[in-house]
Amino acid sequence: MRIINSTASADGFRLPAEFERQYGCIMIFPERADSWQYGAVKARKAFARVASLISQSEFVTVLASAAQYKNARRLMPPEVRVVEMSTDDAWARDVSAEFVTDGKELRGVSFGFNAWGGLHNGLYFPWDKDDAVSEKLCDLYGADMYDCGDFILEGGSISCNGKGVLLTTEECLLSKGRNPTLTKEQIERRLCGALGVEKIIWLKHGLIGDETDGHVDNICVFCAEDEVLLSWDEDENSAQHAVCLECLEILKNSSLADGRPIKVHKLPMPKPVYMTQEECDGLDFFDGKPTRTADIPLSASYVNLYIANDCVVMPFFGGENAEADKKAQKLLQEIFPTRRVEGVYARDILIGGGNIHCITHQIPEYGPAARNESRR
Amino acid sequence: MRIINSTASADGFRLPAEFERQYGCIMIFPERADSWQYGAVKARKAFARVASLISQSEFVTVLASAAQYKNARRLMPPEVRVVEMSTDDAWARDVSAEFVTDGKELRGVSFGFNAWGGLHNGLYFPWDKDDAVSEKLCDLYGADMYDCGDFILEGGSISCNGKGVLLTTEECLLSKGRNPTLTKEQIERRLCGALGVEKIIWLKHGLIGDETDGHVDNICVFCAEDEVLLSWDEDENSAQHAVCLECLEILKNSSLADGRPIKVHKLPMPKPVYMTQEECDGLDFFDGKPTRTADIPLSASYVNLYIANDCVVMPFFGGENAEADKKAQKLLQEIFPTRRVEGVYARDILIGGGNIHCITHQIPEYGPAARNESRR
Repeated sequence: MRIINSTASADGFRLPAEFERQYGCIMIFPERADSWQYGAVKARKAFARVASLISQSEFVTVLASAAQYKNARRLMPPEVRVVEMSTDDAWARDVSAEFVTDGKELRGVSFGFNAWGGLHNGLYFPWDKDDAVSEKLCDLYGADMYDCGDFILEGGSISCNGKGVLLTTEECLLSKGRNPTLTKEQIERRLCGALGVEKIIWLKHGLIGDETDGHVDNICVFCAEDEVLLSWDEDENSAQHAVCLECLEILKNSSLADGRPIKVHKLPMPKPVYMTQEECDGLDFFDGKPTRTADIPLSASYVNLYIANDCVVMPFFGGENAEADKKAQKLLQEIFPTRRVEGVYARDILIGGGNIHCITHQIPEYGPAARNESRR
Repeated sequence: MRIINSTASADGFRLPAEFERQYGCIMIFPERADSWQYGAVKARKAFARVASLISQSEFVTVLASAAQYKNARRLMPPEVRVVEMSTDDAWARDVSAEFVTDGKELRGVSFGFNAWGGLHNGLYFPWDKDDAVSEKLCDLYGADMYDCGDFILEGGSISCNGKGVLLTTEECLLSKGRNPTLTKEQIERRLCGALGVEKIIWLKHGLIGDETDGHVDNICVFCAEDEVLLSWDEDENSAQHAVCLECLEILKNSSLADGRPIKVHKLPMPKPVYMTQEECDGLDFFDGKPTRTADIPLSASYVNLYIANDCVVMPFFGGENAEADKKAQKLLQEIFPTRRVEGVYARDILIGGGNIHCITHQIPEYGPAARNESRR
């Protein structure tokens, strides 16, 4: 693996959209006892179901700690590759490198990671293992690497249309816990250079209750070059509705790099989901304090899905959301007519702090031999 | 990765010879402080030199612990892939799976590993990380795996001619620390089935002073289908000479699977190499005891080399062996006319307990697309 002293943009590399053809997907086996209740047993089954669905059309690699390798190997389907790698938690979306391509070659862009806010408002300390993951992944896949380690960025805070436009939120990218010494304009320039994009669309806020400082992948993501999915709270009196409406207004007044408008698909949100006291009791303390309480609504959203080559893997919340689950699945099936939309019961992922998009990270297709099985 | 309930032999898979075309090579970054003196600094440079030479014609992967990943990444040339994996030491030859092929597909054979003798006379305890390496490697390379974990075997204890013949030593394979409940005939049957070979040639002993219970790869290895390199002590009064002579007699009276005789190339040994007291002082204790003493000769041998696609990497011992080094290189260059024979100053590997063959493990070429760079 070579470290390249240049930028994707300067070299003609670009960040493809998630809905473009992919080579593979990275996930991380959950283990951390203050994130995953009761030994992560239920979460692991949900992760395995996600991996299994994606592996039907992509080469999935699951990273597992030395201690959990054999367990992960037995729990994951044989089609999935399990690779030992140390991490601080299980959020592949945020700790992985972004993978860019010129259509022939794969390269990685390694940003800094500081557990969603570092010493300002990060969610755990230390985060050194997570921070090292992106370089190790470039190495693992034989992708030369652009080192942007001095710029803090999580994969969940951006969504790309593959044609030069990146969607993000001010709440996250301008937060004090990310790159507080850079201006908005400087951040734009870094993003455009690092990821080969031309234009940034700035939403103001992410969903209320999202502990990532409003990651865009939980509220609004590209599902086609000129189309987005927008999480939509139908209760017009709610604070969450106001956030969604604010996004909608911005999107209406935005355009793509070539001036075209953006079509917005509103995806109605599930009813608020809370952790039970029993679930909270199944967590270790972090630094002597509980990591979750039963009375705070979790930021459940159907937008937090993964677009695989032949299917869309979306979260189901079950219980009183059983009907909302089916409704969202139907809507998504219309939006993604060429892919099966598969629901995975994701409560056990959500209560860990994220959802299906947060635990996955795509690697784009590149080159003619790209789907050669032997590239494993 | 699938676990296959069958044998290589039954499935038409075979263990290729090291001199056949290879896809890649596995190494492990040295770290263990009771094996590698003074922080392994000099040893790592020798390992990097070996990796660099092999990587000119093969895809080299170096495994490094989580703690050493970044250091290894910077020390190894960029052509080499560095992958995080936990191990107990740095002997890729012995802890890796053996890789078999039918010419189209790569599969792994995972044997048990017990640190060269387990609780009987093993060199360290525990050895669980080393024992897990072979499965993790099969998974890493996407090779389905034959699980022979109940049979103890190190890669350094066998040498294969790629045409059905395996060379080994009774001293090692019949030792109490390996598979004491199996008879010689049962061991033969296991080896033939597991590795797709037909015939075992049993030498009696390995070199005196070899702490592996006489691994064959330090005394006698195949360099062509019907040719072997035999380490040769020219001092006719020495005990080591008697061991070499015993091997020669056995080889003269042996034949290949098709009845052809075996041509023996005698490779004169270097003068005995001893650790200095200062080198011994650079080692941590193991379990409160020193691991090496300055007065015991190390089993230095030119046979302990690696046959890469376009070069042979052989150990040089320098000092009073400078002339012997050059003589052995010249001999080897005649034996391997199509490959450059490259010497690497290997004292810092030898005093760790092995040599160039011990720290490398080849993966054979397979299938037409086998050398596709993208398979990384």
